[in-house]
Amino acid sequence: MSAARVDGRKVGQLRPVTLTRKWSIHPEGSVLVEFGQTKVLCTASVTEGVPRWLRGSGKGWVTAEYAMLPRATNTRGDRESVKGKVGGRTQEISRLIGRALRAVVDTKALGENTIIVDCDVLQADGGTRTAAITGAYVALQDAVTWMRDKKMIKASREPLAGSVSAVSVGIIDGVPMLDLCYEEDVRAETDMNVVCTADGKFVEVQGTAEGAPFDRAELDALLDLAAAGCRELASHQVKALLS
Amino acid sequence: MSAARVDGRKVGQLRPVTLTRKWSIHPEGSVLVEFGQTKVLCTASVTEGVPRWLRGSGKGWVTAEYAMLPRATNTRGDRESVKGKVGGRTQEISRLIGRALRAVVDTKALGENTIIVDCDVLQADGGTRTAAITGAYVALQDAVTWMRDKKMIKASREPLAGSVSAVSVGIIDGVPMLDLCYEEDVRAETDMNVVCTADGKFVEVQGTAEGAPFDRAELDALLDLAAAGCRELASHQVKALLS
Amino acid sequence: MSAARVDGRKVGQLRPVTLTRKWSIHPEGSVLVEFGQTKVLCTASVTEGVPRWLRGSGKGWVTAEYAMLPRATNTRGDRESVKGKVGGRTQEISRLIGRALRAVVDTKALGENTIIVDCDVLQADGGTRTAAITGAYVALQDAVTWMRDKKMIKASREPLAGSVSAVSVGIIDGVPMLDLCYEEDVRAETDMNVVCTADGKFVEVQGTAEGAPFDRAELDALLDLAAAGCRELASHQVKALLS
Amino acid sequence: MSAARVDGRKVGQLRPVTLTRKWSIHPEGSVLVEFGQTKVLCTASVTEGVPRWLRGSGKGWVTAEYAMLPRATNTRGDRESVKGKVGGRTQEISRLIGRALRAVVDTKALGENTIIVDCDVLQADGGTRTAAITGAYVALQDAVTWMRDKKMIKASREPLAGSVSAVSVGIIDGVPMLDLCYEEDVRAETDMNVVCTADGKFVEVQGTAEGAPFDRAELDALLDLAAAGCRELASHQVKALLS
Amino acid sequence: MSAARVDGRKVGQLRPVTLTRKWSIHPEGSVLVEFGQTKVLCTASVTEGVPRWLRGSGKGWVTAEYAMLPRATNTRGDRESVKGKVGGRTQEISRLIGRALRAVVDTKALGENTIIVDCDVLQADGGTRTAAITGAYVALQDAVTWMRDKKMIKASREPLAGSVSAVSVGIIDGVPMLDLCYEEDVRAETDMNVVCTADGKFVEVQGTAEGAPFDRAELDALLDLAAAGCRELASHQVKALLS
Amino acid sequence: MSAARVDGRKVGQLRPVTLTRKWSIHPEGSVLVEFGQTKVLCTASVTEGVPRWLRGSGKGWVTAEYAMLPRATNTRGDRESVKGKVGGRTQEISRLIGRALRAVVDTKALGENTIIVDCDVLQADGGTRTAAITGAYVALQDAVTWMRDKKMIKASREPLAGSVSAVSVGIIDGVPMLDLCYEEDVRAETDMNVVCTADGKFVEVQGTAEGAPFDRAELDALLDLAAAGCRELASHQVKALLS
Repeated sequence: MSAARVDGRKVGQLRPVTLTRKWSIHPEGSVLVEFGQTKVLCTASVTEGVPRWLRGSGKGWVTAEYAMLPRATNTRGDRESVKGKVGGRTQEISRLIGRALRAVVDTKALGENTIIVDCDVLQADGGTRTAAITGAYVALQDAVTWMRDKKMIKASREPLAGSVSAVSVGIIDGVPMLDLCYEEDVRAETDMNVVCTADGKFVEVQGTAEGAPFDRAELDALLDLAAAGCRELASHQVKALLS
Repeated sequence: MSAARVDGRKVGQLRPVTLTRKWSIHPEGSVLVEFGQTKVLCTASVTEGVPRWLRGSGKGWVTAEYAMLPRATNTRGDRESVKGKVGGRTQEISRLIGRALRAVVDTKALGENTIIVDCDVLQADGGTRTAAITGAYVALQDAVTWMRDKKMIKASREPLAGSVSAVSVGIIDGVPMLDLCYEEDVRAETDMNVVCTADGKFVEVQGTAEGAPFDRAELDALLDLAAAGCRELASHQVKALLS
Repeated sequence: MSAARVDGRKVGQLRPVTLTRKWSIHPEGSVLVEFGQTKVLCTASVTEGVPRWLRGSGKGWVTAEYAMLPRATNTRGDRESVKGKVGGRTQEISRLIGRALRAVVDTKALGENTIIVDCDVLQADGGTRTAAITGAYVALQDAVTWMRDKKMIKASREPLAGSVSAVSVGIIDGVPMLDLCYEEDVRAETDMNVVCTADGKFVEVQGTAEGAPFDRAELDALLDLAAAGCRELASHQVKALLS
Repeated sequence: MSAARVDGRKVGQLRPVTLTRKWSIHPEGSVLVEFGQTKVLCTASVTEGVPRWLRGSGKGWVTAEYAMLPRATNTRGDRESVKGKVGGRTQEISRLIGRALRAVVDTKALGENTIIVDCDVLQADGGTRTAAITGAYVALQDAVTWMRDKKMIKASREPLAGSVSAVSVGIIDGVPMLDLCYEEDVRAETDMNVVCTADGKFVEVQGTAEGAPFDRAELDALLDLAAAGCRELASHQVKALLS
Repeated sequence: MSAARVDGRKVGQLRPVTLTRKWSIHPEGSVLVEFGQTKVLCTASVTEGVPRWLRGSGKGWVTAEYAMLPRATNTRGDRESVKGKVGGRTQEISRLIGRALRAVVDTKALGENTIIVDCDVLQADGGTRTAAITGAYVALQDAVTWMRDKKMIKASREPLAGSVSAVSVGIIDGVPMLDLCYEEDVRAETDMNVVCTADGKFVEVQGTAEGAPFDRAELDALLDLAAAGCRELASHQVKALLS
Repeated sequence: MSAARVDGRKVGQLRPVTLTRKWSIHPEGSVLVEFGQTKVLCTASVTEGVPRWLRGSGKGWVTAEYAMLPRATNTRGDRESVKGKVGGRTQEISRLIGRALRAVVDTKALGENTIIVDCDVLQADGGTRTAAITGAYVALQDAVTWMRDKKMIKASREPLAGSVSAVSVGIIDGVPMLDLCYEEDVRAETDMNVVCTADGKFVEVQGTAEGAPFDRAELDALLDLAAAGCRELASHQVKALLS
């Protein structure tokens, strides 16, 4: 397959990936993640204590909040604070990121502490939720290291059981492709977001037929592409954390 | 595989399915759908005109709203009207139902008319969103027939390109199972909701690892179960619409 | 008087009344009440503890919430959860139901427990608030029995001092009539809702001139009709509770 | 009957009533009404045009909004603007005042104009809603006169078909009493608000058993007291409008 | 300078100032302040305890809330309670009044008690925020005296270190003027609100160029006028508190 | 004066100022402004049309919205979108930025077009509102140039009459200082924000006594420092716009 992509990439090729750690001075973990022109600032904030329903359980909590700056996109969107409510899409993505991160967290090992990972899209060009998950994991790892340094968690137990990353895949003009930019995303007949662990297992699979329903063969092709993409992202994460 | 299920079903067996049409006197389409103890009232309301962003396009619109009565569940939940906002889970499911229905709708054939399908859970025992989609399709079909009778749409063009139904699947103690009841849902390591057309194609696939991440073989087994379940639900829908 | 009513009833005749207990599996008390085509699901939920302002008082609390499904009526109404606030009419009726129930509750006998009675209108054809009160009392009685079985209240003290039921009355073309259906309600010059105990005393009287103001003789005629109607409803309640 | 009242009044005696017209410089009608220590500022605001659902009908609209200053009462209440929603009691009273005023308004004669009557309680000592209705009518009359002067309505047609006033009645220690102050209101077993026209007809009757249910004889006694009270208030209104 | 003002005042002349103490019967301090036609009711409410973030600090808290009745102005404004949120202007002024009062409060001397000063504009004709601050100080002083009488604060320590008052100044047709009424305020090129202590020091200075930016000489002239105006207001406050 | 500042600056010295234009790809104007560690992203969005109250006036509109990312500060703040309302501080600053920009805008020259300038604080270390104004002006200038290129405005008329910049000043341990960082801001007895045009005139002066009230001499010293600071910022703006 050699379909022409809008930016000249091959169908199974990621956009350039950048993970800039310590982008901010205040948070316990902070990463600016870039998937091509998509830029998301992921900050991990540690606080002592847990939500009411976990008090006394000995378990910690990890959650996430996703949002977009009003002019991260091509046309300006009204602020959700001004509208007075968080939109359905925003909540859906916040919940997805939180679930993805918790899939690799051993909450017992965290102790009764909470980590909130904020993912704010500074610039959007498709794949903001998958970039957010990929960056959020690195920010979370940094926050956990910070907690260990502060003796908030015991050295003997590792709170993160593995890594997670995420990527979008889609079918355009019948061709399955990896890591869609906005222009591709708009044209995709089928759109799927896949979250994987570093060892290639699935944490979340969300596929939607935007146009015609898709068959099993197409689904299989998309899953193959996504799994390979996540493996590559996982190595970017390792490299960033070692630098 | 002969795993014991809490209600004695086989792993690939649906709960008893009932689709009661014309349950209400006012709506253009209304169906009480039951998947075992789960009961959802689906009503389809037709109004002339479309949302602002579609005006003049010649296209219609189909959307859905999902909600639960406060005591549909085992413990009472606060009303979202009293809390003053619609929760993330509610919005996510409403959006899912709307997308599922629109996958089989030819909006051009609807003309500039809107159909809102309300799915109100009267009693919950797992699988409320999949029951809702399955019932909503039947209510939508009745509403379209009503519109044809009222000459709101042309006889020459069929607004519904096919049918959709949905079912949940999950892995419990390592065993993939179809159509989880609440007690099973709570214990599932992996939980997936699948929306299919009558000809076995996928409209939406949403799988989440609640416990350990799942591998490709498990994913494949769940998709097989779900596709078979949806075929069976499609025949229930046909039978109801013919009765 | 032999005025023709839209459904052939006599002026002092109730519509067919049905009280179906245990309609739902989860709540401690649940009743589907029908006044003709009006259907309201009343569920009573018991929780330990009381609102903050009653803590330590030794007294329990009974409250009610009323709502309509969006398409319970002839034209679809927007959901209050989506609008982000509970409307004036909804709050007014919720408060009325709560006051009506509390009129027969000995809160000391309940202990520091709370019962919330949810009245959700599944289908509306006039008289939804009076049907709700009539059904809510039966659901409340079942919840109290459940509490007694669970030893949450002492056998020696009866929390319900009597029963309450409610009915609407109105004047149409100068003729006072009992239990108005929607078509009659719209035409009524005067509209009154009356809540009575089984022994014919008044708990609440709410009369409104929709057209011309009414005089004392008309008011007296309406009160007579309503008191008789409530006596009949009380016997329906007894029958349901004995079945 | 010679029951001692907290302020020495007879059972059928109103508190001192004051109606101060033109209390404010801006509104088209403005009245400070005092029932003893209860003080309500009623302002009537005229605007051209009507709500959307009345456009083109040739009819006008009259509505009311009731509110309390935070420290109108003995202990400070949180502002509804700060809480972000209007409470049930506030909405109920606003709706009551609006209905009471509309009972004497010929909306055709108003033309497509709107009058909003704001009733803000500056100091509360029981009977705020009945004082509000009594003052609101006078402010409304002044606004209608203002409209006539501005040629907004035709001289040939009178928009106000009569006057309305309102008073509270209640049973304390078995004795029916007129126009309860706060201390009496708290102790009342039965509490009723009655809105009458000047010719003694009923516009609204709202009676509630706060303690034991009340019988027909008690209800009759309360209605007698209220009707007499409203006649007296009507003469206060006439006097104020002639001054 | 002898510029003609709309009401015949001299450029450095305040409008008639009235401070009526004990205007309401319920609050611990209550003052109706009038600057010409501007009327603001200031009530000070004392409650035991402090906001969460001050508990255990030994310090008290003073805060303020400002609001306007809907028809305090020439055209009716929608209620913020109905709109469901407090507007920016309202919040800004509430915060300003609170800061102004706290500038002279020794919170240690208050003990862990809270005073909320509500400033409700009954009639507006320019300068509502400055009238509010001027009246609020007097209400606050009365509340502190009440607390001393109730032994809520120790006799040995004075919670109020001084007095505050406020006035507006502005430049109209190039001429700096004191205490603008609404008609002047609308025409002003520069508008400034100044809060001073009785000894002529500044607590808050807020100047805004409504038209052309202003230079240092103009700023100096405005500050001179304002300081003199506040001195005069301080003597009105003393007189009122001694009466 | 040679007071030691926490970062070694002289009392009248600005922190390093950076203005990075075209930081984002989507907006018509976008500037990342840095005052030391404070980083604010200012984006200017152009849309055709104006708010309702300006339609048909031939005038355009410029407005601003300010917000902080949740972890821009040392401890995480809850999102205003999640809280469901915009806080008082946020609204106050948004209004300030809008007024400051409009002070140099000729709305007639804009035609009926709107420019919204979003100022999102990515990292906060004091002076976020003054940095925002300084950066917003540059983004606004770029947006105006973009409009001219698109022929949305006539070449013959310049919509920006001058430039605006802003800086904070304060008194710490009795010493007036320029451009406070967060650590200084917290310790300041008096805090003032000043907005000036390039020619040294004042657009807005907002001074607040955080501790003791300040006298005229202190106020004068602060104004001198601020005016000099703004002159320097104006030259940074010119340099950025020429680059």
